[in-house]
Amino acid sequence: MAMKQVASSAIKALANSGSSSVLTRQLHASPGSKKIVGVFYKANEYYEKNPNFVGCVEGALGLREWLESQGHQYIVTDDKEGPDCELEKHIPDLHVLISTPFHPAYVTAERIKKAKNLQLLLTAGIGSDHVDLKAAAEAGLTVAEVTGSNVVSVAEDELMRILILVRNFLPGHHQVITGDWNVAGIAYRAYDLEGKTVGTIGAGRIGRLLLQRLKPFNCNLLYHDRVKIDPELEKQTGAKFEEDLDAMLPKCDIIVINMPLTEKTRGMFDKDRIAKLKKGVLIVNNARGAIMDTQAVADACSSGHIAGYSGDVWYPQPAPKDHPWRFMPNQAMTPHISGTTIDAQLRYAAGVKDMLDRYFKGEEFPAQNYIVKEGELAPQYR
Amino acid sequence: MAMKQVASSAIKALANSGSSSVLTRQLHASPGSKKIVGVFYKANEYYEKNPNFVGCVEGALGLREWLESQGHQYIVTDDKEGPDCELEKHIPDLHVLISTPFHPAYVTAERIKKAKNLQLLLTAGIGSDHVDLKAAAEAGLTVAEVTGSNVVSVAEDELMRILILVRNFLPGHHQVITGDWNVAGIAYRAYDLEGKTVGTIGAGRIGRLLLQRLKPFNCNLLYHDRVKIDPELEKQTGAKFEEDLDAMLPKCDIIVINMPLTEKTRGMFDKDRIAKLKKGVLIVNNARGAIMDTQAVADACSSGHIAGYSGDVWYPQPAPKDHPWRFMPNQAMTPHISGTTIDAQLRYAAGVKDMLDRYFKGEEFPAQNYIVKEGELAPQYR
Repeated sequence: MAMKQVASSAIKALANSGSSSVLTRQLHASPGSKKIVGVFYKANEYYEKNPNFVGCVEGALGLREWLESQGHQYIVTDDKEGPDCELEKHIPDLHVLISTPFHPAYVTAERIKKAKNLQLLLTAGIGSDHVDLKAAAEAGLTVAEVTGSNVVSVAEDELMRILILVRNFLPGHHQVITGDWNVAGIAYRAYDLEGKTVGTIGAGRIGRLLLQRLKPFNCNLLYHDRVKIDPELEKQTGAKFEEDLDAMLPKCDIIVINMPLTEKTRGMFDKDRIAKLKKGVLIVNNARGAIMDTQAVADACSSGHIAGYSGDVWYPQPAPKDHPWRFMPNQAMTPHISGTTIDAQLRYAAGVKDMLDRYFKGEEFPAQNYIVKEGELAPQYR
Repeated sequence: MAMKQVASSAIKALANSGSSSVLTRQLHASPGSKKIVGVFYKANEYYEKNPNFVGCVEGALGLREWLESQGHQYIVTDDKEGPDCELEKHIPDLHVLISTPFHPAYVTAERIKKAKNLQLLLTAGIGSDHVDLKAAAEAGLTVAEVTGSNVVSVAEDELMRILILVRNFLPGHHQVITGDWNVAGIAYRAYDLEGKTVGTIGAGRIGRLLLQRLKPFNCNLLYHDRVKIDPELEKQTGAKFEEDLDAMLPKCDIIVINMPLTEKTRGMFDKDRIAKLKKGVLIVNNARGAIMDTQAVADACSSGHIAGYSGDVWYPQPAPKDHPWRFMPNQAMTPHISGTTIDAQLRYAAGVKDMLDRYFKGEEFPAQNYIVKEGELAPQYR
């Protein structure tokens, strides 16, 4: 059965080859064992604490038994950096690399060049910017995510961060820990979310879920994207489309970043753009750290121009001990966590399993999962 | 004009006196200067940082000029405890006491007995349990709150706390501060709110606003109260009424307390009731600290039976340095802050001014503001 489907896929690949100007490495599995490498964060003592904790090295997305029973080799590691790391050892002969945004395996052009057998890069989660997508496209690789697997997780987390900043939660909690009680020291900069202007840059899957969750808070909701959202959803949320980003930004009390990291968005919040924001603006960024100019954010937090910054994304990841965002005032940062709740892990593990199954059987993936297919990048990454 | 209204109010009081079995001290102002005392938290260096910071001693609800221009005496202090405190000095001759739940002036039966001129106790905010309401009723005092002034503020804050607990925010933030990066140490107990069962005990003004804000999160919503909410709102939020509190509680992943503190609710979450909750339950309590048995909560957090506890209310307030809740694991506590955002302060300052104005003019207050009127307690405090 597997053989038959591989054959049918080979025919499909052949049929499609005319429409692609690049050499597409055969996506679907040829007969025999595949070498699959997964790069995840390590859980150590935390693994035993939750039977559903599948997103770590030890949990290995719950795929080991299933993969090995089919004769495939499955290697998992968290050791992903430098020339002597575990990942590097497997680059020359792996067929599939599974990685996550939470502990990103940076798949550079150089690594792609070395990976002669590589066919498929799967992101367990959303956001494949840790892969050099142009190089992947040129090499004819397929890159796919588990689209939708953790959009609810991230949208919830964004709303939490908005509230934490607006309501000035952390200084209050800090007082509890240090044995203090000074309501004034919190209240003088604590506000309600109600009535404030919230703008999301990007109204894709996550941005739209955020707008829905913001709706009952009676804010003034704005959004900027390449295209307008569905009129029904616009009506439901009351969110207003802003075609010109730089016209929207100065109106916002709170800005939420909901774009992928691309060559266009990299560093787009630099010193100049931040200077044009409302003084006292709050920023939530669970998208990607590199969308911001790191030092410009730290400086604007120090000056008070940015009154609060919260997010779970950094560049690079893990964030080094001396990353400036660890030390800036009014930050409500965490490590990269929002998309890797236990609920999200179960969903993206299932999504990876589904795509591997289709890969072995020579079937197409769900269309929305493709980030690079036959030499073409998905629209949001162009 | 004022004289005329005082006269008409005196007639009203006389007309009403037959319906009340207790001696009602004349509510409305008799001619001449009144002595008004306000007890608020002190802002010190924070006062200058925000021109709208009216809820502190220094801001004095923005009432000083208005009161003094009418010939009234207006004393504000944060010194409220013990026999030699500033408040105690004014007890014998004050006419009106304005206090807040954030820095509560405990108005005991003894203080009421000493306060021979006292007519009116105003709570700048919501929750008048710092007043001995029975003693106030027996003495014929009027007690009133600025009902509705900070319900949105508190409901928003509750949703923030739910998310902070469910998503395990604080251990992540702690890692940032301490220079660590360990996604697993957060993720193993981080969940989405979606799909969880959330129960509110009390679906009054705050509980209902919370249910509306929870609606887009796709939870299973339950509520317990003396009466059912409006069928329209029940339909809108999808919340299910649970007549039997102890039948509802074990179903809940997350419990939110939204009841006033009364003789019935004091200490209702004791060791026995907590033992019947789902293991791993999360509790949010912005209502009143004394609804919980302090040590029982701390013990259940230590054992892990309660997996997270967050709130801004303690007993007593300010919480002493050795309050057990400061030290228990998985707490996301703050000082009493949720109802005293800048937005809330502006609303309750306006509400207090309105009631004082009506008091001087001999007019009734908005009906929903009364907590004790003519010897009767409002239904929620009975």
